[in-house]
Amino acid sequence: MNLRHVTSINDLDNDEIEQVFALADRYLDKLKDADHPHRIGTSMDIADGSILASLFYEPSTRTRLSFEAAMIRLGGKAIGSADPATSSAAKGESLADTVRVASNYADVLVIRHPRDGAAKLAAEYADVPIINGGDGAHEHPTQTLCDLFTLRRENKQLKNLNVAVSGDLKGSRTIHSFVYALARFGANIMLMPAKGMELPPHVDWRLRNEYRCRAVPKERYDNAAMDALYVTAKQPHQLSLMAPPDFERTVKLKKGVDVVYVTRFQKERWTEQGQDYPKVDANFLKAAKYRKTSVLHPLPRVGELDASLDHDRRAVYFRQAAYGVPIRMALISLLLDLDKRNGWKKFERGFVESTHVLFDQPIDAGIECINSNCIVHDKLEHDYARSRFHLIEAEPPRLRCFYCERDIDSFIIANRKTRHYETNASARNFPNQKRAKDFVLFADAREAEKAGYTPRMSNRKTAAR
Amino acid sequence: MNLRHVTSINDLDNDEIEQVFALADRYLDKLKDADHPHRIGTSMDIADGSILASLFYEPSTRTRLSFEAAMIRLGGKAIGSADPATSSAAKGESLADTVRVASNYADVLVIRHPRDGAAKLAAEYADVPIINGGDGAHEHPTQTLCDLFTLRRENKQLKNLNVAVSGDLKGSRTIHSFVYALARFGANIMLMPAKGMELPPHVDWRLRNEYRCRAVPKERYDNAAMDALYVTAKQPHQLSLMAPPDFERTVKLKKGVDVVYVTRFQKERWTEQGQDYPKVDANFLKAAKYRKTSVLHPLPRVGELDASLDHDRRAVYFRQAAYGVPIRMALISLLLDLDKRNGWKKFERGFVESTHVLFDQPIDAGIECINSNCIVHDKLEHDYARSRFHLIEAEPPRLRCFYCERDIDSFIIANRKTRHYETNASARNFPNQKRAKDFVLFADAREAEKAGYTPRMSNRKTAAR
Amino acid sequence: MNLRHVTSINDLDNDEIEQVFALADRYLDKLKDADHPHRIGTSMDIADGSILASLFYEPSTRTRLSFEAAMIRLGGKAIGSADPATSSAAKGESLADTVRVASNYADVLVIRHPRDGAAKLAAEYADVPIINGGDGAHEHPTQTLCDLFTLRRENKQLKNLNVAVSGDLKGSRTIHSFVYALARFGANIMLMPAKGMELPPHVDWRLRNEYRCRAVPKERYDNAAMDALYVTAKQPHQLSLMAPPDFERTVKLKKGVDVVYVTRFQKERWTEQGQDYPKVDANFLKAAKYRKTSVLHPLPRVGELDASLDHDRRAVYFRQAAYGVPIRMALISLLLDLDKRNGWKKFERGFVESTHVLFDQPIDAGIECINSNCIVHDKLEHDYARSRFHLIEAEPPRLRCFYCERDIDSFIIANRKTRHYETNASARNFPNQKRAKDFVLFADAREAEKAGYTPRMSNRKTAAR
Repeated sequence: MNLRHVTSINDLDNDEIEQVFALADRYLDKLKDADHPHRIGTSMDIADGSILASLFYEPSTRTRLSFEAAMIRLGGKAIGSADPATSSAAKGESLADTVRVASNYADVLVIRHPRDGAAKLAAEYADVPIINGGDGAHEHPTQTLCDLFTLRRENKQLKNLNVAVSGDLKGSRTIHSFVYALARFGANIMLMPAKGMELPPHVDWRLRNEYRCRAVPKERYDNAAMDALYVTAKQPHQLSLMAPPDFERTVKLKKGVDVVYVTRFQKERWTEQGQDYPKVDANFLKAAKYRKTSVLHPLPRVGELDASLDHDRRAVYFRQAAYGVPIRMALISLLLDLDKRNGWKKFERGFVESTHVLFDQPIDAGIECINSNCIVHDKLEHDYARSRFHLIEAEPPRLRCFYCERDIDSFIIANRKTRHYETNASARNFPNQKRAKDFVLFADAREAEKAGYTPRMSNRKTAAR
Repeated sequence: MNLRHVTSINDLDNDEIEQVFALADRYLDKLKDADHPHRIGTSMDIADGSILASLFYEPSTRTRLSFEAAMIRLGGKAIGSADPATSSAAKGESLADTVRVASNYADVLVIRHPRDGAAKLAAEYADVPIINGGDGAHEHPTQTLCDLFTLRRENKQLKNLNVAVSGDLKGSRTIHSFVYALARFGANIMLMPAKGMELPPHVDWRLRNEYRCRAVPKERYDNAAMDALYVTAKQPHQLSLMAPPDFERTVKLKKGVDVVYVTRFQKERWTEQGQDYPKVDANFLKAAKYRKTSVLHPLPRVGELDASLDHDRRAVYFRQAAYGVPIRMALISLLLDLDKRNGWKKFERGFVESTHVLFDQPIDAGIECINSNCIVHDKLEHDYARSRFHLIEAEPPRLRCFYCERDIDSFIIANRKTRHYETNASARNFPNQKRAKDFVLFADAREAEKAGYTPRMSNRKTAAR
Repeated sequence: MNLRHVTSINDLDNDEIEQVFALADRYLDKLKDADHPHRIGTSMDIADGSILASLFYEPSTRTRLSFEAAMIRLGGKAIGSADPATSSAAKGESLADTVRVASNYADVLVIRHPRDGAAKLAAEYADVPIINGGDGAHEHPTQTLCDLFTLRRENKQLKNLNVAVSGDLKGSRTIHSFVYALARFGANIMLMPAKGMELPPHVDWRLRNEYRCRAVPKERYDNAAMDALYVTAKQPHQLSLMAPPDFERTVKLKKGVDVVYVTRFQKERWTEQGQDYPKVDANFLKAAKYRKTSVLHPLPRVGELDASLDHDRRAVYFRQAAYGVPIRMALISLLLDLDKRNGWKKFERGFVESTHVLFDQPIDAGIECINSNCIVHDKLEHDYARSRFHLIEAEPPRLRCFYCERDIDSFIIANRKTRHYETNASARNFPNQKRAKDFVLFADAREAEKAGYTPRMSNRKTAAR
């Protein structure tokens, strides 16, 4: 079986994202409402007999309804569970079991869940494609597809585009998916976080190291609101991860800010009130550099984007919302191979496995994900999730949780056979995938010793590789 | 764009209501269940590819399901959000934004909301037709269409029909839509309110003044339970609002009470228990005047209509419930122009604008709607609603809230240019629509003075007109 | 009208159950997913234009979604109310009224309700077929259809099959439907209850007396975990209820346990934690007698079935879950006569009335059902339910609640005309159905006397019969 899931924007390569856009363009042209050219106004029959099920463990109206509308516009039908309190989770069922069972009820599942990495766990247990409708503070890939498609429809080429992202850069899964995509397509990213809601270090690390962004020193640009600026390399590409960054480009911000992407204060993730949360209004946008900007917002907004802008020519957010339907139609169509008679081929490859070495050990035995909101820490999933980490870098060593993609840069590796652990904090030698099962990871030497491991003698040759 | 919304029963004129009935008759005849002739038992395909979305901010089973069933019986599909707690409102989104976004997901939106006037606000922001599924204590127009259709199917001509309405006449939106329609079609209305739940003064005023009803003195009829009786004019007509009432008719109640319309005690709108809430049972109906009556109830009932009546030949309420589907099919069909190939033309005109002068000023600047449950007082809508009032009458002056239709009969008008306000409590002169923007309304002189206005000198000529 | 409801597994006779299986087989063969042969992967159009409505008063994901998926796979559409809090019950409406009204919105209703007997009450008021989706601790007949179908697909013949049922045998409605069906098809039933969660006495009584099961003494088998063993008669048959049991068969358990059916700890029905709740895991299954067992579980599981078994060849529960869709497709198809063009005839007879004498008296007047969770004790249903009991046996006398099927073996019968009650605790004479209305039942003599009845003189002839 060769299932294709979309748990992260990075589950789609750039060519596939372009395919989604091309098909969304086609659906929009073909099915648009005569009175509202950004809106799908009629339906096809290519999904006749297909079912989309939405399993939503967090409140949502727009994401769920836009997926259901997309499936119906394709000719299919939608079922779902909208309320955590009336779902099987209320009876204490794991997401893993729910997904396994719901695979019998639908041809594609959309999951929204409060835990980071939930969609990835779901994908491990599903018999049908999983689409991530938002998992904790991790990612929201279909929102990012809408965002990029909106920029494209506004005739904004992503390459070298200056994109400012504003507000809650820490808890907004939408931002995380978005900045990865911007970097991959060569846009420059400007950070304008609310205080205390800066981009998480692991997202920053990925931008710099995997997508070859270069952080520009504050002296090189003039914007008090801007916390950081990433300039992307000449030929960013998913496949060239970790290649040496291409630094010949110079920073060209004179042309102004092409896009301001505003996010809401996520009261459900922050207990304290968002004081001094940045507000985008007519006053903010009066600076010359915003003259040709496009203002985007994933919506809902709760005060950070002034309603008086709604009729400003720079306001793009309602068109952005409208594009949610054609984009999701295109994604569902390609995942389920619905439009093959018109020459639209299903994504060829299956779900891409990372090429990084994967360590896989039981929860409670060794190191655990440091993200307390990771799906592996959900008690209901205890028997279904494992401590799984990719080794992203060897020197300095860096692990990444398989589910929530949070990184760990301090840990100990031990050999199950020799019962020794490496004393060197910066482990120089790691096994290949084949031998990974002979090793176990610990948070620190104390944990390793508690589990009965002893330090490897310094004069011995390193066990691994 | 020429959208057609149904936020009030008065958004449809009498001819249009007759069209809805004629089409509902046709659907019922064509699609009825052989075993249950009041029930639709099969489906058409004229709405193939269309989507109805229900946005329900209050609990409901029957209204939502009957709309969804109606759309499906037409061949369309339904999506929706049934639970306020899992909706975007839970994230703090305004109804205005929700409706704008949901317009991209469906071809018609049905709104239920706890605030009076919510459907009208929604209609201002929607790109597709809005149908009011009940807004606060304001109106429930599709229930009224079912009610009138039921009477018609029972061979009861509305003209001169004696209709008693019983129970909560204050908080029941169903009653408010119903009595307006009864007056418009020439029925006589008898009020049998529960204590403290009398018909609100603004509804009474509209019956007397806009629909030319005449209140009959208590001495002229003999019914202890009856609080008031309205006899409607000879040719009541929506278009002849405010014309002098036609009083030549005499009261003919000897023929008895043709209809008793019972409403439930609305525990969600009243904090105290409904003591002495009138109960309609076999004992109540044994009076001679009820011998040929039809008992209607919008359901659900919670004790005020005795189950022992269910098999009484006068009980019509279950047929009334059954007609909810064909009526809503007909309304959706006409709003969306689904049945044109069979010669059923879409309502010709767009959403009717009132011909009364409209004052439009920001909330917080001047007079506000006196109805604390009006949608304009919902904090979430603060940036999307305005203080908007129609000038219904000049002498004595009377304003009506654009959203919730609650009237205000005491206010002050001031001229923004001269910075003077009229001292005369009964303002004699008002601007026309073109000049209305030069004026501002205040609750009283004190508020006007606080805003920097001074009284107009009595010897000057009146500023307006 | 000749409606057919499925409120209990006993509403279907063995031939009808076989028809459901045969049609489910056909749908599965025809529509299966190429990659997952237990899963329906495409749709038909035989239910085009039909609507299934789910009225769920208890949380559920899988049952509701599997019914909706089944209707959609047949070509129909689904609507529903998933959340008690947003339903008409929140307004205080009775199930009876809700069902009457919802009959207008759909062609078949699926009811889930926390009260025992709710589906039976619903069936009394519905104009369309009712399917019981689980009512309190009473029954869950479609789950049982899945369970039996699963065994059949696993090539396990029910006749003489050794089936162990484990866990909460008291509160699990699934178990109650299942053991009746096992007995009817001639399987042997082994009980392995959690402590305090033994099979209720009335279910035990029915197994022994109606389905002619023989309880085998503990000495005759060797299994510490087993609380009881029922061996079924040679030719069990629904129509031969109460015939003398056929005891010639000998107990043959040497062949081992063919099926272990595990049920979850139902925290919503038990206030205390389930200490020592039996857990089925690899250790449990290592005994020789479980070598060829099939492990079933209706899911969700909450710890009583170890996830490590998921890849064990004996684990059947995920296939069992997959069969939920084809089984429900077949049942809906036969109830609604959807597949007649392919020669599948609708169940011929209507809803079967019991041949036992039925006593029918108002609640509050005489004996009441002893099951405090029976639907008749729901205040909302007070005006719609009555105290209705079938006289199951005359000697010793035994009543059974018409709704929840809980039995009463101690009561008094009184004659409304003579105003006497029978002093003999074991009433020897009962009226036939025609004369039943002349009698009234009381819990005891004291209640009868309070109602003004006096003991019948011993020398008079018995009034009844």
